Amino acid sequence: MFKELLENVRRKKPLIHAITNYVTVNDCANLLLACGASPIMADEIEEAEEIASLCSGLCVNIGTLNQNTIPSMFAAGKKANALGRPAVLDPVGAGASNLRTQTARRLLEEVKFTVIRGNISEIKALATGTGTTRGVDADVADTVTDETLDGAVSFAKKLSEKTGAIIAITGPIDIAADHSRAYCVRNGHPMMSKVTGTGCQLSALTAAYVAANPDRPLEASAAALCAMGLCGEIAFARMEEKDGNASYRNYLIDAVCRLRGEALDKGAKYEIR
Amino acid sequence: MFKELLENVRRKKPLIHAITNYVTVNDCANLLLACGASPIMADEIEEAEEIASLCSGLCVNIGTLNQNTIPSMFAAGKKANALGRPAVLDPVGAGASNLRTQTARRLLEEVKFTVIRGNISEIKALATGTGTTRGVDADVADTVTDETLDGAVSFAKKLSEKTGAIIAITGPIDIAADHSRAYCVRNGHPMMSKVTGTGCQLSALTAAYVAANPDRPLEASAAALCAMGLCGEIAFARMEEKDGNASYRNYLIDAVCRLRGEALDKGAKYEIR
Amino acid sequence: MFKELLENVRRKKPLIHAITNYVTVNDCANLLLACGASPIMADEIEEAEEIASLCSGLCVNIGTLNQNTIPSMFAAGKKANALGRPAVLDPVGAGASNLRTQTARRLLEEVKFTVIRGNISEIKALATGTGTTRGVDADVADTVTDETLDGAVSFAKKLSEKTGAIIAITGPIDIAADHSRAYCVRNGHPMMSKVTGTGCQLSALTAAYVAANPDRPLEASAAALCAMGLCGEIAFARMEEKDGNASYRNYLIDAVCRLRGEALDKGAKYEIR
Repeated sequence: MFKELLENVRRKKPLIHAITNYVTVNDCANLLLACGASPIMADEIEEAEEIASLCSGLCVNIGTLNQNTIPSMFAAGKKANALGRPAVLDPVGAGASNLRTQTARRLLEEVKFTVIRGNISEIKALATGTGTTRGVDADVADTVTDETLDGAVSFAKKLSEKTGAIIAITGPIDIAADHSRAYCVRNGHPMMSKVTGTGCQLSALTAAYVAANPDRPLEASAAALCAMGLCGEIAFARMEEKDGNASYRNYLIDAVCRLRGEALDKGAKYEIR
Repeated sequence: MFKELLENVRRKKPLIHAITNYVTVNDCANLLLACGASPIMADEIEEAEEIASLCSGLCVNIGTLNQNTIPSMFAAGKKANALGRPAVLDPVGAGASNLRTQTARRLLEEVKFTVIRGNISEIKALATGTGTTRGVDADVADTVTDETLDGAVSFAKKLSEKTGAIIAITGPIDIAADHSRAYCVRNGHPMMSKVTGTGCQLSALTAAYVAANPDRPLEASAAALCAMGLCGEIAFARMEEKDGNASYRNYLIDAVCRLRGEALDKGAKYEIR
Repeated sequence: MFKELLENVRRKKPLIHAITNYVTVNDCANLLLACGASPIMADEIEEAEEIASLCSGLCVNIGTLNQNTIPSMFAAGKKANALGRPAVLDPVGAGASNLRTQTARRLLEEVKFTVIRGNISEIKALATGTGTTRGVDADVADTVTDETLDGAVSFAKKLSEKTGAIIAITGPIDIAADHSRAYCVRNGHPMMSKVTGTGCQLSALTAAYVAANPDRPLEASAAALCAMGLCGEIAFARMEEKDGNASYRNYLIDAVCRLRGEALDKGAKYEIR
């Protein structure tokens, strides 16, 4: 079922506008190329709307946000809305600083996002306005496990209802939910948390999937979650004795580059609640 | 014949000042180290002229340009001109936004560039002031192939005559032209377009080659084109079953690091028109 | 003896706030994850103090400094001081531009750094206010070798006495000195200078080591020097025929990821003067 969604990305080659942090931007660009999309990074206010107009999708990532780039996030988001193009929000570090939490919340008020993708602490901070995000990582107390899954699913569905966005929460179990249905995804590998920006990469990937499948944002978000997680598993299986997180980072993007629809359908591990 | 040009880079170890986008900056720095040059990235107006003065060559790349870095591009370019140091312009995304097109055109008016290196859509946008650049990729309709090569060569020679710069256009066939002669280069591999910033890397490499060979800018530009393309071929030959664009990216820089003059002369595929 | 220091990093997982250049920032983040720490990059003045408050250590790196990020360096540094958290200064390119030299010197006046880590030319520029730094590389005339080691050790001890910071100088022989004792470290490999930002990575690593071992800053700095150098050796031993500086860069971070306390104690090569 996800096969077609993946193949639409490869066939349509959506151009994705990313306003994203400078820590992981290169990996996001190569990830977009790996999945079959094309990236353009542009965060200057004088060109933000024009670049957004060119593109099939937008990814706004607030890591390393600053006073120059924040207005561009709003301008690009509003332009994408006006043109009916999907937009993804990655609230990196929401809950870690007031600037991040409030910027993410203001973005939600003024821009309609198709998908919001973050870890559970970031998404909670977005929902409540306060948080205990540990830098850019989830607070351990928040982690979604089998014990807490029901509550997390319910939280995600309610937040989706409130915001109108698909809520994609990543962690040991991932969730992609609209107001009534939640994909609970059990792909992925703990090694992914040893590489900076695997979350940022997933947000970019999600933007590509929803841009290529604009009428099916929930399925596209779930497919992106499964694809990224599955590639995390494939990458881990490839590791050799001397490999560490740097080689793993390459293997992960390589796996996205190699992934085909049949393999995604075969490897995707999810249930719908 | 290109052997000597490559060896001059390794022998002189030119220090290259790069004002470049934050997407591919790390690869540009490692590429410069790989070829034997040294990089320094500096885009703050308060130090742009001073850093330009220290260096043997300048590379101005307008990807992720912004209001803070644009003035530095002009200041560094003028200082390089005043000191007689070669300068390379990479008009990333010219044709994709008015800001990029106009900034690149104003740079051309106020700074004398030794080489302008871009894809055909970017170079056309620079020449005409409008364009159909697809983000940072060439418009398919513009692509230089055997059918359109004569026209592209003629266009490049005329633009070189008008600007006084070597015009280096990359695509399936690459061109490096002054007003009377054009190297048509058939090195390279399509996989290069699956890695973000191979064009940016080539512009940095070109800056190193012209800085180390200041009296032979056409030959140096052609040598850089052949070297980069040949390394793209070498990198592809090294790919194994599980490798994707991330491993290919490493193999490409590795190949530049390993490339010696004899191999460049042996592998360079070009004709002069 | 260094075993415990390394294990404290893995056990405490210190969150490190990095205000660092955009050239090597991704490698710094992955290096921090590799050693067991967690990175957060944040250089906007509106959140600099708040992020510094969250973290166990700060790393200020002035490469690609600009008018927006310089005030954040001061604010974060002062906040770290107020909270008694260790702070590391990497004066990248001090001596190459007046802005870098003076910013680094003003930082030293207004912020108490636990460790200052640079190449010999940068550290001399910091000490004297002028320099001959070749871009971001040490001037060859300055290099610390067996012939010049005594003078360099004496210089480092005096500068440590003056600044109150551990002085960590890297080159063919590395030095970590307080006012009375200097570790002279003979780990490392020349290949490290072919990868951009191995110095930046070391500064980030040093921040993690001193954050996890706040009562032993000299030993922690020396352990970080030995760890990074040893990993440079391990990475070189892993190189194969076609590998260049890009693969080496991965192997280096991989080695940090794999390094355990026993191996560090066994491989560390140093004497105390």
